[in-house]
Amino acid sequence: MKVDGKDMRPIWFDKKSETVQVIDQRFLPHELIIKDLNTVDDTIYAIKEMVVRGAPLIGATGALGVYISLTQENNKGADNDYLKSECKRLKNARPTAMNLFWGVDRVLSAALQQADYGARIKAAFDEALAVIEEEAINCQKIGEYGLSIIENISKMKNGEPVNILTHCNAGWLACIEYGTATAPVYTAFDNGIDVHVWVDETRPLNQGSRLTAWELGKHGVNHTVITDNAGGHIMQHGMVDLVIVGTDRTTRAGDVANKIGTYLKALAAKDNDIPFYVALPSSTFDWDITDGIADIPIEERDPDEIRYVQGLCHGKIKRVLIPPETSSAANHAFDVTPARLVTGFITERGVCRATQQDILSLFPDKKK
Amino acid sequence: MKVDGKDMRPIWFDKKSETVQVIDQRFLPHELIIKDLNTVDDTIYAIKEMVVRGAPLIGATGALGVYISLTQENNKGADNDYLKSECKRLKNARPTAMNLFWGVDRVLSAALQQADYGARIKAAFDEALAVIEEEAINCQKIGEYGLSIIENISKMKNGEPVNILTHCNAGWLACIEYGTATAPVYTAFDNGIDVHVWVDETRPLNQGSRLTAWELGKHGVNHTVITDNAGGHIMQHGMVDLVIVGTDRTTRAGDVANKIGTYLKALAAKDNDIPFYVALPSSTFDWDITDGIADIPIEERDPDEIRYVQGLCHGKIKRVLIPPETSSAANHAFDVTPARLVTGFITERGVCRATQQDILSLFPDKKK
Repeated sequence: MKVDGKDMRPIWFDKKSETVQVIDQRFLPHELIIKDLNTVDDTIYAIKEMVVRGAPLIGATGALGVYISLTQENNKGADNDYLKSECKRLKNARPTAMNLFWGVDRVLSAALQQADYGARIKAAFDEALAVIEEEAINCQKIGEYGLSIIENISKMKNGEPVNILTHCNAGWLACIEYGTATAPVYTAFDNGIDVHVWVDETRPLNQGSRLTAWELGKHGVNHTVITDNAGGHIMQHGMVDLVIVGTDRTTRAGDVANKIGTYLKALAAKDNDIPFYVALPSSTFDWDITDGIADIPIEERDPDEIRYVQGLCHGKIKRVLIPPETSSAANHAFDVTPARLVTGFITERGVCRATQQDILSLFPDKKK
Repeated sequence: MKVDGKDMRPIWFDKKSETVQVIDQRFLPHELIIKDLNTVDDTIYAIKEMVVRGAPLIGATGALGVYISLTQENNKGADNDYLKSECKRLKNARPTAMNLFWGVDRVLSAALQQADYGARIKAAFDEALAVIEEEAINCQKIGEYGLSIIENISKMKNGEPVNILTHCNAGWLACIEYGTATAPVYTAFDNGIDVHVWVDETRPLNQGSRLTAWELGKHGVNHTVITDNAGGHIMQHGMVDLVIVGTDRTTRAGDVANKIGTYLKALAAKDNDIPFYVALPSSTFDWDITDGIADIPIEERDPDEIRYVQGLCHGKIKRVLIPPETSSAANHAFDVTPARLVTGFITERGVCRATQQDILSLFPDKKK
């Protein structure tokens, strides 16, 4: 997507330096810093510390991480056991997003088909780039399928702005292009439909106010930042036409793990008869489980992510402490929205209702 | 309540300096600053800028504000029209909390009964202090009535900690003593019941992580700060036994205006069969209205309260900017939780269900 007129993705392979590079998302919107990923440790750090974040992007980073593991100076990548153990380390970087396991396994599998070390490196590189390009295309398709939902609301409102609420950042920064939740928004905007986005700030790490607001602003999309607390009130007062969020893992029965707080918005949407859609590429489905609340592991992160808030102070990025130094905090990173609260899924194969039957009718190859 | 062994209230009349003094709550928990209120303008500033906040405390401040209006240097307080217009200015300081109108009107009415200027000042002073002492006693009674709810849960859990979630600060800082939502917690704690409080941080102004966490810590009550997003997840996983919140205005039919985000917690409590109580003195009921969503005015505050976050940085209080400089924000300060989501009210007259009939059975004098 364009940033100040220049094409940009959150991850890429820089041909000149032969290095994987990423946007360091911890410092947006105030600083646009590019970071090199030279080693598996660099890659794990980037995933764990949320230099990169968002399920599809974590998947893409994991995919390139397998390639990186083969190019490390120790040249041990020819050894299958070593390669597998590096891939295991990559997959352990974060526990919730399905795409990480999917991306790593796909590239690992391509690499293992080549015994020759040079051929293995090339196979991993090609497969990682294929993963990335496919995910970019998947997001584009999500945008096209989601467009009709927004278009219909726009028609019903006689062209008045369509108000879409989103939580966290499921934009191009979380993916490769377009985003998942934002893809229908960008596609609608690019098709001349009047859209306005309510951006949940998304505590604790403020991916909404920092990243979604930045993305939308750069693309010229009308948006307003709100606290995570505000969604229910604006839904009660007719100020939201549609909710679209992303997901880190969705079960075959349609339970949706996403950034903590998503469940509360789904409850409010249900209580106010507002459609609640989840946009995802198929790489985010966990085909092995049905019960999200019982079976999706929810990451607990450093409580200091809650206790401290980072932002811009007199031109410099600073961190401020909010609660008393002695108060502890608990930092669950995700929650699970039961399928019963989800109106539908927007995938690269089309839109479906949040039931196992409907999901599998789009993905018949996943029938057991 | 005790702060480091010293008795403290959020508002008091200092006899030595003959001045109304308040804790400036904007700088807690990092700095404990005392502020003088010498004029009606000081008082309005304190209410508007949230030097003081919380419905019962706003009521107490408004009550003392009427006294302050009589002691201003212009000595115009003997004039009924002038006095009434000053009271109107006080009541306009914030639109949502019922207690402000109630506190101001009660003292105004006592003052107007005295034509003599000296007698008028004395009547206003006495009535304001009476309001304050009555509210302190009301909170104590709320604590006693609420105790039995916590006690019952503690028994069912065989003495395991009772986990109580609260939103915003409805503690003694918001009242005079004990608080409303926290009164049952303090009373249970003082009676040796094992309690643990989940403290919603309460964006945008973080009254939970700044004020509730500070209060509970000073009293020795076990607590954990969480983001406003987290409540649904911990309820789904059996980590919450009870929700208790305060309110800024409650209709005679039981619709509850409270800090933005309360409605989302009520929805989650309902979805997980967790009791959701609202603690309030009768001064918070608006006996004239039934439909909270239609009829309670919701204050919209400065968007910069969302865009900037204040906290401690290297020993100094600083403000940091979160979203892009160019992104706008919307700051609705309250939302309304419909009575259907409320398990019951804890008042100074006892506990009742959230129906007009049950509320009026506790307050039969309010039957029309």
